[in-house]
Amino acid sequence: MKRRMALTTFLLPAGYHRDSWRRPGSRADELAGLSLMADLARTAERAKLDAVFLGDCVHANSTMRGDIMMNGFYEPISTLSALAALTSKIGLIGTMSTSFTEPYNAARQFAGLDHMSGGRAGWNVVTSRDGFQNFGGSGAPDPEVRYDRAAEHVEVVQKLWDSWHDDAILVDREAGRWLDTDELVPINHSGERFQVAGPINMPRPPQGRPVLVQAGSSSSGIEFGSKIADIIYTAQPRLEGAIDFYGRLKDAVRGHGRDPETVTVLPGIVPVIGRTEAEAHEIAADLSSMIDLDAGRRQVAGDLFLEIDDIDFDEHIPAERFSEDPKMGTRYHIFRSKAVDQGLTLRELIIDRARSTGHMFFVGTAGQAADRMIEWFDAGACDGFNLNAPYNPDGLELICDLLVPELQERGYFREDYEGDTLRDHLGLDRPSA
Amino acid sequence: MKRRMALTTFLLPAGYHRDSWRRPGSRADELAGLSLMADLARTAERAKLDAVFLGDCVHANSTMRGDIMMNGFYEPISTLSALAALTSKIGLIGTMSTSFTEPYNAARQFAGLDHMSGGRAGWNVVTSRDGFQNFGGSGAPDPEVRYDRAAEHVEVVQKLWDSWHDDAILVDREAGRWLDTDELVPINHSGERFQVAGPINMPRPPQGRPVLVQAGSSSSGIEFGSKIADIIYTAQPRLEGAIDFYGRLKDAVRGHGRDPETVTVLPGIVPVIGRTEAEAHEIAADLSSMIDLDAGRRQVAGDLFLEIDDIDFDEHIPAERFSEDPKMGTRYHIFRSKAVDQGLTLRELIIDRARSTGHMFFVGTAGQAADRMIEWFDAGACDGFNLNAPYNPDGLELICDLLVPELQERGYFREDYEGDTLRDHLGLDRPSA
Repeated sequence: MKRRMALTTFLLPAGYHRDSWRRPGSRADELAGLSLMADLARTAERAKLDAVFLGDCVHANSTMRGDIMMNGFYEPISTLSALAALTSKIGLIGTMSTSFTEPYNAARQFAGLDHMSGGRAGWNVVTSRDGFQNFGGSGAPDPEVRYDRAAEHVEVVQKLWDSWHDDAILVDREAGRWLDTDELVPINHSGERFQVAGPINMPRPPQGRPVLVQAGSSSSGIEFGSKIADIIYTAQPRLEGAIDFYGRLKDAVRGHGRDPETVTVLPGIVPVIGRTEAEAHEIAADLSSMIDLDAGRRQVAGDLFLEIDDIDFDEHIPAERFSEDPKMGTRYHIFRSKAVDQGLTLRELIIDRARSTGHMFFVGTAGQAADRMIEWFDAGACDGFNLNAPYNPDGLELICDLLVPELQERGYFREDYEGDTLRDHLGLDRPSA
Repeated sequence: MKRRMALTTFLLPAGYHRDSWRRPGSRADELAGLSLMADLARTAERAKLDAVFLGDCVHANSTMRGDIMMNGFYEPISTLSALAALTSKIGLIGTMSTSFTEPYNAARQFAGLDHMSGGRAGWNVVTSRDGFQNFGGSGAPDPEVRYDRAAEHVEVVQKLWDSWHDDAILVDREAGRWLDTDELVPINHSGERFQVAGPINMPRPPQGRPVLVQAGSSSSGIEFGSKIADIIYTAQPRLEGAIDFYGRLKDAVRGHGRDPETVTVLPGIVPVIGRTEAEAHEIAADLSSMIDLDAGRRQVAGDLFLEIDDIDFDEHIPAERFSEDPKMGTRYHIFRSKAVDQGLTLRELIIDRARSTGHMFFVGTAGQAADRMIEWFDAGACDGFNLNAPYNPDGLELICDLLVPELQERGYFREDYEGDTLRDHLGLDRPSA
């Protein structure tokens, strides 16, 4: 059978393009409500996508500066659980930080989402760089420290998900035994950071274990993701870099004794789709014209940890202001390379950041976008894509109504769901406890 | 206008009666899924109840012993958010412990539920007696310590809900200003237990502040609830005790400078309703016959902190084994009184515990139940009731289809919703930030 793509989409109230809320067609006055999210999730489900994905941002730092972080408005567990009731097949991936939560609560909430959705939950595990001041801290610990905590956190969560065996529930009315208590096992976890007795207080999730997702692309991130994740998100603007990352990631997966086919690598793509090439370029130009350069300057400065208040928009950021520390993560180095190697001016960097945040940015027809995606897929750069609609809701509709059918016609994406759970969509077995 | 009752119902997968899952009509094989909860919530909304209420139990201790804690199967935020999408008017009250959560997460999750439901969220604030071993602890701290943490936790949550002013959102596409950042205020909370910078990362909840609910009836519990809560749940098996509690609670509310009319006191009632009195008694007898006495013994021992393995079912628990410490809470003293003053045998205590857990237990027709409820309401014992269906789903249907209409006909309960939010249902203003 022909290898097929996995496709997910980022749930973005306004769109991936930072200023897309300014478009007349945006639903900018509904940015915290359910109805908008419901329409987006239903559009994605109509296109048979594997999952919708909700980011998270546990602080309002950017919003306070006027750089509106649209994703932060939606608390993932409440939003995805509401969407669980309004959809029936599509996977529901939510972000939760291991730095700010207790494993017992995280295990329950994703198990709850999995029960509410009949087995469609996914957890995007993040360690967070910002937000510590909302949880008693000052700044973020070093990545190694955060990833150590994350590793133990996830280990505890998985033990809790496994703490009710699958055959624990008897429902024997006659004997008065709803369950076999011998099939519940305390986990008695006692580690460096967590002491958790268990068992969890609910039956095993429908998927056994909800799907784990990871997106850290620093060296610590790759090490962690290759060990635990079923899906890896990554920002890869160029084919060569994507092929290199894909190879390194799959090698790391093998290094952990795991089958690389069970890990789905999904770079993001921001496709501006038009019915004609000219229409696509018009839309892209319209979006670019909306960018608030001052807010963009603050955002670029924040992303790159740089002082750039003295740089004019048409100047270049001096190379010596950048760090070469590999710990800074893939996205940092993408922007560093754009500024230093490709010579983008500050204005160009701001536009680039505003429209794609380091992801592949594409402008053209559905056919052209499909060509590009298939080129990457066939070249061994990915197992599919995370589709980031540049603007919503109509940007997502064009992707789902034009681009996805194009991929289906060419045999690169399935015509319909072939199972009921997110694991089914990804071709993953249900793990035993 | 005639004073009317507030009515909520406990969302119970099997029913309040501990062994009701054994009835042929129970949906015991669906006890963790959405469909059952959705049917119960829709039944309650059809009857125009103010809210459904979901308890919580952050451990499986009882389940491990075979004493199935049906409520614990449902994680409140995920469950109620799914129900938010399937209902349109009814309030959604969920339990969350201040001992096991960070205020920033709690604030976001209840704000999220409030956004998803269009203003129908309520938070039942508990401090937890059990479950600490799942969060790095061994046993529960003293009630004073727990309530001190709870008070500061709730204070931080309320500050966060207020940290976006109501007029922060501009949606000025032309000027590129989605919000007025001056209308977002960091809270910079620095207290004994929590340091939280804020502001929160989402617009103010539709209700301004989701409704606060409290059910602790120990002396610390009354002090705390009278200070913060909009709804007080209480277990009151007898009219005199209920009148006394109601008076003390409202005095305490006044003592905090609050208007006692803004605090709704709701004792629980477990009404076994029949179309005839005989049918009701038949149902009650059927339920009693299902009680597992050995599991009941463990449950009574756990509730009363007693060693009773040596007591035969038809013997009495010796009075000297009970503590008279008022800190033990209302429910403890209810059972102590039943054992010591009323002379219930262990078997009778087990049955009493299994069917009503200290709440008013009633068997009869809808008309008789309405008489009893109106007697309490008119005598100044309460502002309404929390209806605990003894068995589900049909027990709740009888309550909603027979008992509630009886109260409506007599003018004690509204015929339809008169607003959209839980605050509307309770007659509470939306607080300004």
